[in-house]
Amino acid sequence: MGMVGGGLGSFIGPVHRMAATLDGEIAFVAGAFGSSAESSRAGGARYGLDPARVYDDWRALFAAERERPDPIDFVAITAPNHVHFPAARAALEAGFAVLSDKPATATLAEALTLAEIVAATGRPYGLTYTYTGYAMVRHAREMVRAGTLGAIRKVVVEYEQGWLSRPIEQADDRQAKWRTDPATAGIGGCLGDIGVHAHNLAEFVTGERVIELCAEVSRFGSGRTLDDDANVLLRFAGGARGVLISSQISAGARNGIRLRVYGENAGLEWSHENPDRLTLSPLDEPQRVIHAGMPGLSDAAQRATRLPTGHPEGLIEAFANIYRDFAASLQSGDAGERALVPGIDEGVRGMTFIDRALRSGAQGGWVGMDMGAE
Amino acid sequence: MGMVGGGLGSFIGPVHRMAATLDGEIAFVAGAFGSSAESSRAGGARYGLDPARVYDDWRALFAAERERPDPIDFVAITAPNHVHFPAARAALEAGFAVLSDKPATATLAEALTLAEIVAATGRPYGLTYTYTGYAMVRHAREMVRAGTLGAIRKVVVEYEQGWLSRPIEQADDRQAKWRTDPATAGIGGCLGDIGVHAHNLAEFVTGERVIELCAEVSRFGSGRTLDDDANVLLRFAGGARGVLISSQISAGARNGIRLRVYGENAGLEWSHENPDRLTLSPLDEPQRVIHAGMPGLSDAAQRATRLPTGHPEGLIEAFANIYRDFAASLQSGDAGERALVPGIDEGVRGMTFIDRALRSGAQGGWVGMDMGAE
Amino acid sequence: MGMVGGGLGSFIGPVHRMAATLDGEIAFVAGAFGSSAESSRAGGARYGLDPARVYDDWRALFAAERERPDPIDFVAITAPNHVHFPAARAALEAGFAVLSDKPATATLAEALTLAEIVAATGRPYGLTYTYTGYAMVRHAREMVRAGTLGAIRKVVVEYEQGWLSRPIEQADDRQAKWRTDPATAGIGGCLGDIGVHAHNLAEFVTGERVIELCAEVSRFGSGRTLDDDANVLLRFAGGARGVLISSQISAGARNGIRLRVYGENAGLEWSHENPDRLTLSPLDEPQRVIHAGMPGLSDAAQRATRLPTGHPEGLIEAFANIYRDFAASLQSGDAGERALVPGIDEGVRGMTFIDRALRSGAQGGWVGMDMGAE
Amino acid sequence: MGMVGGGLGSFIGPVHRMAATLDGEIAFVAGAFGSSAESSRAGGARYGLDPARVYDDWRALFAAERERPDPIDFVAITAPNHVHFPAARAALEAGFAVLSDKPATATLAEALTLAEIVAATGRPYGLTYTYTGYAMVRHAREMVRAGTLGAIRKVVVEYEQGWLSRPIEQADDRQAKWRTDPATAGIGGCLGDIGVHAHNLAEFVTGERVIELCAEVSRFGSGRTLDDDANVLLRFAGGARGVLISSQISAGARNGIRLRVYGENAGLEWSHENPDRLTLSPLDEPQRVIHAGMPGLSDAAQRATRLPTGHPEGLIEAFANIYRDFAASLQSGDAGERALVPGIDEGVRGMTFIDRALRSGAQGGWVGMDMGAE
Repeated sequence: MGMVGGGLGSFIGPVHRMAATLDGEIAFVAGAFGSSAESSRAGGARYGLDPARVYDDWRALFAAERERPDPIDFVAITAPNHVHFPAARAALEAGFAVLSDKPATATLAEALTLAEIVAATGRPYGLTYTYTGYAMVRHAREMVRAGTLGAIRKVVVEYEQGWLSRPIEQADDRQAKWRTDPATAGIGGCLGDIGVHAHNLAEFVTGERVIELCAEVSRFGSGRTLDDDANVLLRFAGGARGVLISSQISAGARNGIRLRVYGENAGLEWSHENPDRLTLSPLDEPQRVIHAGMPGLSDAAQRATRLPTGHPEGLIEAFANIYRDFAASLQSGDAGERALVPGIDEGVRGMTFIDRALRSGAQGGWVGMDMGAE
Repeated sequence: MGMVGGGLGSFIGPVHRMAATLDGEIAFVAGAFGSSAESSRAGGARYGLDPARVYDDWRALFAAERERPDPIDFVAITAPNHVHFPAARAALEAGFAVLSDKPATATLAEALTLAEIVAATGRPYGLTYTYTGYAMVRHAREMVRAGTLGAIRKVVVEYEQGWLSRPIEQADDRQAKWRTDPATAGIGGCLGDIGVHAHNLAEFVTGERVIELCAEVSRFGSGRTLDDDANVLLRFAGGARGVLISSQISAGARNGIRLRVYGENAGLEWSHENPDRLTLSPLDEPQRVIHAGMPGLSDAAQRATRLPTGHPEGLIEAFANIYRDFAASLQSGDAGERALVPGIDEGVRGMTFIDRALRSGAQGGWVGMDMGAE
Repeated sequence: MGMVGGGLGSFIGPVHRMAATLDGEIAFVAGAFGSSAESSRAGGARYGLDPARVYDDWRALFAAERERPDPIDFVAITAPNHVHFPAARAALEAGFAVLSDKPATATLAEALTLAEIVAATGRPYGLTYTYTGYAMVRHAREMVRAGTLGAIRKVVVEYEQGWLSRPIEQADDRQAKWRTDPATAGIGGCLGDIGVHAHNLAEFVTGERVIELCAEVSRFGSGRTLDDDANVLLRFAGGARGVLISSQISAGARNGIRLRVYGENAGLEWSHENPDRLTLSPLDEPQRVIHAGMPGLSDAAQRATRLPTGHPEGLIEAFANIYRDFAASLQSGDAGERALVPGIDEGVRGMTFIDRALRSGAQGGWVGMDMGAE
Repeated sequence: MGMVGGGLGSFIGPVHRMAATLDGEIAFVAGAFGSSAESSRAGGARYGLDPARVYDDWRALFAAERERPDPIDFVAITAPNHVHFPAARAALEAGFAVLSDKPATATLAEALTLAEIVAATGRPYGLTYTYTGYAMVRHAREMVRAGTLGAIRKVVVEYEQGWLSRPIEQADDRQAKWRTDPATAGIGGCLGDIGVHAHNLAEFVTGERVIELCAEVSRFGSGRTLDDDANVLLRFAGGARGVLISSQISAGARNGIRLRVYGENAGLEWSHENPDRLTLSPLDEPQRVIHAGMPGLSDAAQRATRLPTGHPEGLIEAFANIYRDFAASLQSGDAGERALVPGIDEGVRGMTFIDRALRSGAQGGWVGMDMGAE
């Protein structure tokens, strides 16, 4: 595996590295880590890579690796959003599989183009929608598929942060800076950074697709051009109704992604605050609190669990599950493992969600998810 | 005090009785408890009242009590919604103060008329918006007023129940029956039963008024004509944005009313699951968990607390706080105590909220709260 | 009903009043409320009683009431501990039933004598062990009796407070003062005030009796002669082992009484922080969170619940359940309702527990619960 | 780094591997993984090691590695307890540093001997007391050291599991089998497996040493010769009192290690259920909930945190912190980093704790921690 982005100062790069190597099955051997040759070398040193496989930029990475007898088999794209599309396109066209951070691209148009490239090249493409890697999220999905809840009626998904309550990007906070700048973040601020996680989580667990939405999109931080808060009403294809709350100005909130799904017969709840727990609330019966690692869980949950019950696994492990499944699918050629790894379809849906939420916010009222990019 | 409604089979009648008499300061001495003279007598017996002051209907109650040398000084209206307006009107016109269960009336037009009657008669009128009686809700309000949160940016208020997941009104569940029947419930189903609580709670704590809303209103229970689920985007006069979630088909939910308020500097959260707790989350500082009864709380919180910290007080005590404040204001003639008891303004706002949410749900898109009843 | 104690400055007196009258079935009509005729009158005024039935002291109360045509039928003893025995003795000998606050007496010898008096007079005697009044505590007891947990192996019961961390009795805190003075509190400090609650709760729920114990008893507050902290190892008759933690110097703790019971097949947990919840944890299965008011609960739980599920009931309601059951047993002459109200046996056991814990703490090592008073 | 133990079927071996390599600073290159040459090879394959450095047993490992030009610098001992002492002794004598799983040895006598060997060889020796690796445990320690709580008065530490409720060792459960067999587990059952964790955690955070204890030690599982439950009263050198609860038959418990410390001015609580949280409860002030990754935490906490606040880190990361600190101390020769890694002193204390608890349990009553091994 090689990496694009994730150099010095990156938060998510080291998470990708830890996740990729946690299970000892993926070798991280090459990369291009920055906007200059110098910063790339510094990044390579951070990861202890052979300097010969640390490249000045991702163009050089793909060009050189494809000529090696022992090239990387896939590339992890961890750079800011505006790099996702060109790097993924180049990687795919050079023959490499791609595992990209979300959102898939900076704009919806890019995502649609990327979908064509994935189809044309036939190379595997995955997205690290982190929360889909948690064992209990996967178990929730299995419970819905098994019909435990009955027909889904209502979905409430929230992702609340407070760290952008103040315009810290003006004080040169590196993480805030690129996320609030359209040149690097793309069309979505909060929506692109965390709203897509919430949208994906809701669809991943329920298997239902959002078909219409109505959004209120706001900018509270002074001087911001991108959204930092969005509240969205959702309509799902199967008739369910929903609410998506996404915010980076919810003062005091840390990283609170939480999902509630209500069916005809039962509700379920998962919260990132206690990711190894899942609550099932059948009508008129005691709530069941299900813990990762306990007997009787679905295969999907068991395969995503490394430790006995009661031993917390966190975000790095969830991330590692995505890496493991993606790598396994490359080995097997079988999409089996990869069924759980979001791909380009989810990428296009995510960008459509951002695009439509912004449009709804701008014009007021409901918009469809299937209007195309125009 | 006299009571209208609350006879055999009523859930809320006994809550009113316990709340009214908890502190030993209000005598419950008269009432009209049912739809027939017989059922009224049965209700009077339930409460152990002197049969001479148990009346065939509320018309008789007001007519007789006003002639007594020792009449009741106020009447509690606990009957289903369609009785609220005619009984309140008659009581006020007979010279009695009124403490009514919510919603104020069955329709917005009735509420507007009632406001005129309250103004014309000059008689005190209060509404038992239960959750405003909790000590920690009152403390939350004080914290907002004191500026602890800074300018309010976002409000998320939820009221989730699951007990109407199935159409139990068709199996003659008494509580379900009148709440799902427009003839007794009025224009709102879930919105009138619990949505107004959520709306009121948000305005009570923040001091901000909803000026526009955009709602999705649903009927999931087969055969229902009234809503049993509503999700609403909110805009507040001061610029804050919000979400209101109200549901009676959230399977497995019990009675989960919960409020989150985010300001520029801090967020707060209160949940009915642990009503004697309040969480304040200042930016970049540890969360503070504030408990009822601890030293240093606001006067408003202290006056609403009977027990030392760590000794749970529940819904009956919250209800009793409203009764106590309302009764005290009758004694003192001073609106001081009554400032915390919602009145006809809140009643009109609640009915406007229901009316506008239904309108928005029907037509799609945003509607204002100030259009008048038309 | 009449009351002894509970005058101005009393915390528990008003709790008894609210509890006694909550359900409208018990009339509170007489009392002796203080250490002087004047303070008694002030107390009677506090409760709005007919001054003719407010007596100078409890001797006068019993003497006068027994001569009335409409005497009280029972007396609630809410004064500090040293009054429990003489007042209960006099009441019983005057023919009145007694419902006393805990602990039963100030010393074990008094308790043994009181047991003889109860037997000799044949009058009903009950103890307000508050926590036995909670619906979910009663349901826990039913689950153990039904064999849901299998044979009991381990019991962990804690009662943690922090309010005596500092010697506030020296600053004239009224509640602290009498509880830290042997002349008013009796032999136990923390053990008598809250340790007996923990001991009773463990035996009430499990139906198992402590037969041996080994205690560490401490005094952390400067100048204290009575214990303010105790940790106790327990052995139960049926072979279960246990731990009892009782403290009033656990800084920051409010009123944390909590019980865990582990059987061969399942564990259960109840905590006063969320008294309307009960967690059952069967081996290798999801935890079940059981809520008061939900369908399918035991009769014992249903009878102790006034509100629908999700509507919190607190300490006053728990207390009221004890009053209601005690009063019902007086009416019916049937011990049925009273089976759930702790009586003189539990009183003697509580005083034995204090006595033995102090002895064990003083001498080190294990002592039996059946040695007699000596 | 090399490893002893941790072959196929081991739970803890892979945890050590993941922890050691998580930060990319430690190379895991050699090992001896089983009781036979064949099983060792299978273990080596599991970890993808060069077969040339997978040895038939640990004797061969140390003998061969010391002759290499690029030997391992330390060995991680992850085999069952009976291997800890001989393998550690051999490693130290061969010149390797040792990072051992707990308990240090199988008997107290072994631990005392090992302490002499550590002193004689001068080689670094560390113990993976997992819970000391959590950022918030380290922050708790810093708060105590900074005097935030004042003088410590009371410590309650619990470690509850339920997985040995039934004698699953008789059904050949591998993990249960060696832990319940004195030949592999040593003198302690539950005490050696998890009791030492609880004891260490209490001393690590408070900086106070247990000087006397009084234990009840039980065997509930049929056919067991080692303890599966222990409740222990503690006395600390500084005057604090404590309770340690350790159980593997607490049916329904998962892996509940939890610490409460009460000082003169405040209490703190940490629980493994939410390891990235720490609650500080100052007297008469709101509770503070402190989260890993938030601003203003101690250096010790910051260095043990990889992710922004709200992104859960779990047991593997805690383990990795111990590895990282141990490895850093080997590099720097400075004990600075290692101050946080428990060493042979803690190992001897842990074995003394087990020994004394068993003695106290057998004879009843209090025993000292300083009696020597005898």
